[in-house]
Amino acid sequence: MSFNTFGKLFRFTTWGESHGPALGCTVDGVPPMLDLSEADIQKYLDERKPGQSKYTTQRREPDAVKILSGVFEGKTTGTPIQLMIENVDQRSKDYGNIAETYRPGHADYTYTTKYGIRDYRGGGRSSARETAARVAAGAVARKALGEGIKIRAGMVQMGSHKIDRDRLDWDEVRKNPFFCPDPVTAEEWATELEAIRKAGSSIGAVVEVVAEGVPAGWGAPIYSKLDADLASGLMSINAAKGVEIGEGMNAACLTGEENADEMHPGPDGKPVFGANHAGGILGGISTGQPIVARFSVKPTSSILTPRKSVSSSGESIDVVTKGRHDPCVGIRAVPIAEAMMAIVLADHMMLHRAQCG
Amino acid sequence: MSFNTFGKLFRFTTWGESHGPALGCTVDGVPPMLDLSEADIQKYLDERKPGQSKYTTQRREPDAVKILSGVFEGKTTGTPIQLMIENVDQRSKDYGNIAETYRPGHADYTYTTKYGIRDYRGGGRSSARETAARVAAGAVARKALGEGIKIRAGMVQMGSHKIDRDRLDWDEVRKNPFFCPDPVTAEEWATELEAIRKAGSSIGAVVEVVAEGVPAGWGAPIYSKLDADLASGLMSINAAKGVEIGEGMNAACLTGEENADEMHPGPDGKPVFGANHAGGILGGISTGQPIVARFSVKPTSSILTPRKSVSSSGESIDVVTKGRHDPCVGIRAVPIAEAMMAIVLADHMMLHRAQCG
Amino acid sequence: MSFNTFGKLFRFTTWGESHGPALGCTVDGVPPMLDLSEADIQKYLDERKPGQSKYTTQRREPDAVKILSGVFEGKTTGTPIQLMIENVDQRSKDYGNIAETYRPGHADYTYTTKYGIRDYRGGGRSSARETAARVAAGAVARKALGEGIKIRAGMVQMGSHKIDRDRLDWDEVRKNPFFCPDPVTAEEWATELEAIRKAGSSIGAVVEVVAEGVPAGWGAPIYSKLDADLASGLMSINAAKGVEIGEGMNAACLTGEENADEMHPGPDGKPVFGANHAGGILGGISTGQPIVARFSVKPTSSILTPRKSVSSSGESIDVVTKGRHDPCVGIRAVPIAEAMMAIVLADHMMLHRAQCG
Amino acid sequence: MSFNTFGKLFRFTTWGESHGPALGCTVDGVPPMLDLSEADIQKYLDERKPGQSKYTTQRREPDAVKILSGVFEGKTTGTPIQLMIENVDQRSKDYGNIAETYRPGHADYTYTTKYGIRDYRGGGRSSARETAARVAAGAVARKALGEGIKIRAGMVQMGSHKIDRDRLDWDEVRKNPFFCPDPVTAEEWATELEAIRKAGSSIGAVVEVVAEGVPAGWGAPIYSKLDADLASGLMSINAAKGVEIGEGMNAACLTGEENADEMHPGPDGKPVFGANHAGGILGGISTGQPIVARFSVKPTSSILTPRKSVSSSGESIDVVTKGRHDPCVGIRAVPIAEAMMAIVLADHMMLHRAQCG
Repeated sequence: MSFNTFGKLFRFTTWGESHGPALGCTVDGVPPMLDLSEADIQKYLDERKPGQSKYTTQRREPDAVKILSGVFEGKTTGTPIQLMIENVDQRSKDYGNIAETYRPGHADYTYTTKYGIRDYRGGGRSSARETAARVAAGAVARKALGEGIKIRAGMVQMGSHKIDRDRLDWDEVRKNPFFCPDPVTAEEWATELEAIRKAGSSIGAVVEVVAEGVPAGWGAPIYSKLDADLASGLMSINAAKGVEIGEGMNAACLTGEENADEMHPGPDGKPVFGANHAGGILGGISTGQPIVARFSVKPTSSILTPRKSVSSSGESIDVVTKGRHDPCVGIRAVPIAEAMMAIVLADHMMLHRAQCG
Repeated sequence: MSFNTFGKLFRFTTWGESHGPALGCTVDGVPPMLDLSEADIQKYLDERKPGQSKYTTQRREPDAVKILSGVFEGKTTGTPIQLMIENVDQRSKDYGNIAETYRPGHADYTYTTKYGIRDYRGGGRSSARETAARVAAGAVARKALGEGIKIRAGMVQMGSHKIDRDRLDWDEVRKNPFFCPDPVTAEEWATELEAIRKAGSSIGAVVEVVAEGVPAGWGAPIYSKLDADLASGLMSINAAKGVEIGEGMNAACLTGEENADEMHPGPDGKPVFGANHAGGILGGISTGQPIVARFSVKPTSSILTPRKSVSSSGESIDVVTKGRHDPCVGIRAVPIAEAMMAIVLADHMMLHRAQCG
Repeated sequence: MSFNTFGKLFRFTTWGESHGPALGCTVDGVPPMLDLSEADIQKYLDERKPGQSKYTTQRREPDAVKILSGVFEGKTTGTPIQLMIENVDQRSKDYGNIAETYRPGHADYTYTTKYGIRDYRGGGRSSARETAARVAAGAVARKALGEGIKIRAGMVQMGSHKIDRDRLDWDEVRKNPFFCPDPVTAEEWATELEAIRKAGSSIGAVVEVVAEGVPAGWGAPIYSKLDADLASGLMSINAAKGVEIGEGMNAACLTGEENADEMHPGPDGKPVFGANHAGGILGGISTGQPIVARFSVKPTSSILTPRKSVSSSGESIDVVTKGRHDPCVGIRAVPIAEAMMAIVLADHMMLHRAQCG
Repeated sequence: MSFNTFGKLFRFTTWGESHGPALGCTVDGVPPMLDLSEADIQKYLDERKPGQSKYTTQRREPDAVKILSGVFEGKTTGTPIQLMIENVDQRSKDYGNIAETYRPGHADYTYTTKYGIRDYRGGGRSSARETAARVAAGAVARKALGEGIKIRAGMVQMGSHKIDRDRLDWDEVRKNPFFCPDPVTAEEWATELEAIRKAGSSIGAVVEVVAEGVPAGWGAPIYSKLDADLASGLMSINAAKGVEIGEGMNAACLTGEENADEMHPGPDGKPVFGANHAGGILGGISTGQPIVARFSVKPTSSILTPRKSVSSSGESIDVVTKGRHDPCVGIRAVPIAEAMMAIVLADHMMLHRAQCG
């Protein structure tokens, strides 16, 4: 119910602004007796943190996480886990006229209209820095899920340029600066994005996230469907504009014959599916196949080309964004996608256990 | 939190199975002193009910709603409103071997695996009959929103065949059996769907829903973003596989320059936007522009062509679905889309009022 | 979160007014595969229903429950269970001037002030008829808890007259019209209450409810403590004004030495407690001892002696309540107390299982 | 829903252990544009902090609060407010055999049984240090409520010794070390408690909290009744064993005639009440009279007299608690009571505004 809380049983609440002293999250409902250290969390934060390549913002944030509660002698205790990340690089002490400017495509106008006030420094609460807290919470969720569930995401489209599915190899994801599961496409993107970056422009992307090892039976109809909770979780990521499960929007184009995931008797009594158009979810409940979700990320609105806007006093102005920005924010959305998948699954694992034993 | 409840302040809880004695919903948190009659609700149920054209299932359900509580002398009292719809046409007393069959693309296997039991008659709880309750709740939400907010949906794509946006006219929607806002395309679909229907096949679709008149400032970051709640609400509709806000998945293909919704000073001091790629939402908060959402609907899995599946005892079987089914379930999803939009907006109207006065 | 919903995982939502066509509840989150019939529920409703003795209102309501969903072939399916009770005896078609009268001690004034409207017939939503729905939900909760947990309530005080704890015998509760666990006191109360009833007066009471067989470890600090949830659940019962756990308000009078529940090694490795001042709960978590709660019930405000009040138009009036009323509403609160205890425990059983496996 | 979260719209989530590096809370849903500084919060923390008199534990904690988010240029922004308090005085580096000891009356046994682990240092999460976070959240709630609502608490009973209601003067509360509204009784308690303290014993207490200025109409039947939410909130305070509204448990002893709060026409059209047995709440909704609640606090279990207990390995042991403890924990419960009242009221102010405008 709380605006800044996600999840039902495995729940986290994030707090903090881009240029405040710190940000973080409280992870509540975590099963006890899980091994958890700051290093377990830090490795995921390091993947998301800025400045990893020339394609991401050059803001220098170590994003060092501290566990302030809920862990004792290296194990979770079942009490709330507070994870805090201090903001270090708040370089631009001079915010120029940003306080009076509504940047197109940003949340400046909507926050100000809603609340009558906004922390304009670096986007305040609407900044994607908030997602660091999600990645931290996601690391805890992975611990709750255990080793049997493998969650992997990658960027599968940049602009109109999609990966070649025949070359898809999830092991490639950590080998290029795009988290791209297709190394050939990754090289092509490098050229393309460098041009975009130099032009002070930006480009959208699609991120795909897959969870393997999820048993059949997780999810809870009707309004806590696994796909509905994933849709909510992924759409809440900054810049997301569309969410797909399995065939996604393309399901519209299929016939019933094409879309059917036929079932066959499997060796262990469980059915084996002939296809996975459903993305691993039927009726809101997992089928035992991989859970497959995708979401689009819009191009960042921070570009060099002047765009028309209005000031807070209602004057027409030109907005030009100089400085440190991601030409393709889809890249850094990859670790966030994994985190949100892990969190949704951990929540549903617990919900299922609660009701069905 | 409850599995069968949607919404935070304006909340409804649905109950009922396809072939049980009745289904319905409890709508809680409704503002008092709203005029509300059964007729106010019935008109929306009549749009969704089966048998309206040859393109929808021929099951004959009057879907007559009864208000059992929460309304006194024609006005809402602020107490929970119980809306009940009795099931009348539960024709198929002989369910054949459906109890032992896991139909591909249906929730038979997942419900049984999760719960160890399922009401197999007509799909039980996983049947789209549940959506009648949503439509009823949506009618109440419209009352809460008032006349100033106009919510309209239509089918904008059937198979790969999209409407021509140059011909889009929302006033056309109630004039053809497809809820299609483009009359020319509607005629073409008629021919196409008739062929699909006769072949015992089915086809997917895309539904678009637009809300006009929503003021800037509704929505609540981070995890109750207006778009995240819409994504959850629309993805929870039976057969939905993808959800889009504004540019949706296509946002991936755009540059920052293309995607920018420039702002200009408006006559009343409020900014006027030059475009609406954002679909009326920035940072999870409404901009004052129309809210634009879309979702894909997969083709129904109930087709005449045999599909391979397994029985509950693990045998390989062929599944063929005869009888009364929608060749394109996207058609009847249109009133449901409007209902879910109304419910999300009513909830956020109240949430905004609570926090910001 | 919803106003008319109680519980986190095992949840029920009640609806209905005293003189509307029906009332009921949706019970959501119920574990699947539990045996459940209308008779299983009816037996508890029969205990609460009016007209069981001359000490309770003579309104004649059969309180016959119908299961409308969520049960298939005698077993729960994991989907929401709708329980409906039709109102039959809505005798007083002439409501006199009750619409314009704010009766002292009733919710007439507060409902009208809050909502600007109220269903005044029989108290509308504020009537204790709502508690029938709780008793029905409680019957489902008992099924979820299983046979190992025994929940029993009784009236332990009427006016200032308390039972003699030396004579306390829970098996006596169903043998007298007061649900009194002390047969001698019950006889004395009979004389006392008959005099009160004849005088058109009323009297308060204390109800105690005890749950045996609850294992150590249920409950969830800090804000879902077992005692906090019991306090909320019991205080929500009509006319309740105080709630106690274990020593309750008397804990104020004790020293640390007196209040200590000493622990001794038990035969099975679990500790044995030397006393139960704590009422079976420490730190919000069950100790394995019986859970002991009590609540006071105020005297009904419906009395023959005129009381000063105001009309809805602000005039001074005298209020006299004739007709069918309970001289001691504590009696019928006993089955409700058991139901609320069962519901809180079922919820915490599931919450514990979710987090701790 | 979250275990460590309280409230529906005005919500706070606490975290932290007694001897961890810090504790705090996230306050979410706060109205924007409220003036808020650390000093506004600190003044209430200073009232609760230990070491204020010889009657409270001599642990030296400055309890200095830091605002880490949600406030910009001295005003709330509508985003989550993180309040952090560092733990400074964690003196007892040597925890002796506390790790293996289940102290009677403490949560040692229940936490360990539930979670399989506990942070035993200073009671860990079950320590009353958690209440510092509540007091901080309460300070924010007071800001949301505004000046018109006055919330005052005091200790009204220590052991069996109650204040003299004829001498009750809320202005006396801050003038003695007991937060006692009756100065004569406060002096008598001083002698009594000094004896108890020197004997290494402890004693229970009753705290009363009163809110004046609450308009009629706040509260939401049936399961978010103002009294039910107060009951939950007050019972969640460490050591609370009973909660009363208005007449409380004594309501059992009254007749309908005695208990009636007669109403008379008031000068401004609103009714004037002749008494307040109801404690300002009818049907779960405020009447406009003062809201009056009380709760009992058990004597702390940390006493010098040996008590029998068991070790974690099941051995019989004697427990003696030396060191810094409160002989009457009721004293420090007073600021907590005010905080919980403020939080419940702020939540219901917002809930009422949401539904009823």
